[in-house]
Amino acid sequence: MKSEFDPRSLFSISYGLYIASSYSGDRLNGQIVNTVFQVTASPPRISVCINKENLTHDFISESGVFGVSVLDETAPMTLIGTFGFRSGRDANKFENVGYKAGTTGAPLVTEHVLSVLEAKVVDAMSVGTHTIFVGDLLSGEVLATGSALTYDYYHKHLKGKTPKNAPSYIESESKQEKIEPEKGANR
Amino acid sequence: MKSEFDPRSLFSISYGLYIASSYSGDRLNGQIVNTVFQVTASPPRISVCINKENLTHDFISESGVFGVSVLDETAPMTLIGTFGFRSGRDANKFENVGYKAGTTGAPLVTEHVLSVLEAKVVDAMSVGTHTIFVGDLLSGEVLATGSALTYDYYHKHLKGKTPKNAPSYIESESKQEKIEPEKGANR
Repeated sequence: MKSEFDPRSLFSISYGLYIASSYSGDRLNGQIVNTVFQVTASPPRISVCINKENLTHDFISESGVFGVSVLDETAPMTLIGTFGFRSGRDANKFENVGYKAGTTGAPLVTEHVLSVLEAKVVDAMSVGTHTIFVGDLLSGEVLATGSALTYDYYHKHLKGKTPKNAPSYIESESKQEKIEPEKGANR
Repeated sequence: MKSEFDPRSLFSISYGLYIASSYSGDRLNGQIVNTVFQVTASPPRISVCINKENLTHDFISESGVFGVSVLDETAPMTLIGTFGFRSGRDANKFENVGYKAGTTGAPLVTEHVLSVLEAKVVDAMSVGTHTIFVGDLLSGEVLATGSALTYDYYHKHLKGKTPKNAPSYIESESKQEKIEPEKGANR
């Protein structure tokens, strides 16, 4: 049943850009994700898909909670780079970023963010390199009005690249553009 | 740990709009969804979240395959209404719509569509009212260039409503707007 597959057919899927976050003891971490969505209305549940190699994956698995900060279009590449192209194993990503602790303990970014959400994991499914975490919403707050940063906007206007651990990573992208982020760099 | 939850905090999550489709014997069906995304790059896998009451859910469960047609901004409300506010139990939704059979047998809409994808289900997770189906991509084809129809565009420019079986349905929406689609009408 294997047939023709043009990778460009995936490019028209729409995504936002978010910082998914969690904690372990007094350590905080977060990473850029494009895979947040609401899965049910009653009760309100959201899901996020995270690479198993990433530190945020470990923290969510351990704490059973995650935060989501919805980036807006004003988010600068420095903020996106901090959470998208560095590993929390090497540095405290929250050191120079505005954030607050959520009711779950997960850090919620407060700059260039439209809203923040927190969820308690109720189920998780391994999908190969990644895990889909599903969580009951525990809190949700609107921080600002504005336009959500979309993956499309990020690529077109910010000329953003896709880290190697992202679900939408395409090998040819890094080759063509002569940039290859460290494997696992979006941890 | 229950705390404040403002439903508007969910409004800044970005989605596209798609027709998810499948078949049973010689019966075809499809429905509007906003919950398609790529979950892994190697192998390329996508997921879709479908209400358990919907006929498309039955067909995907039975056939083990699903198609995705990525709508573009030119999609008229008649097309969206056919797949979003009617049930395949009452009518053949594909009767007056341009489509082709995919290699899996799933029908793929070819009008007002940027690309079509087909996947074979490799796992599924119940998340309450809905199921997240995860599938290996079997085919992917670009049909047109243009802008993907986003949920945001649908609400702002097409003044679209949210069917009751959608993950992002909010009870107050139908009340405020004095429209309440039949329960399950997006089947």
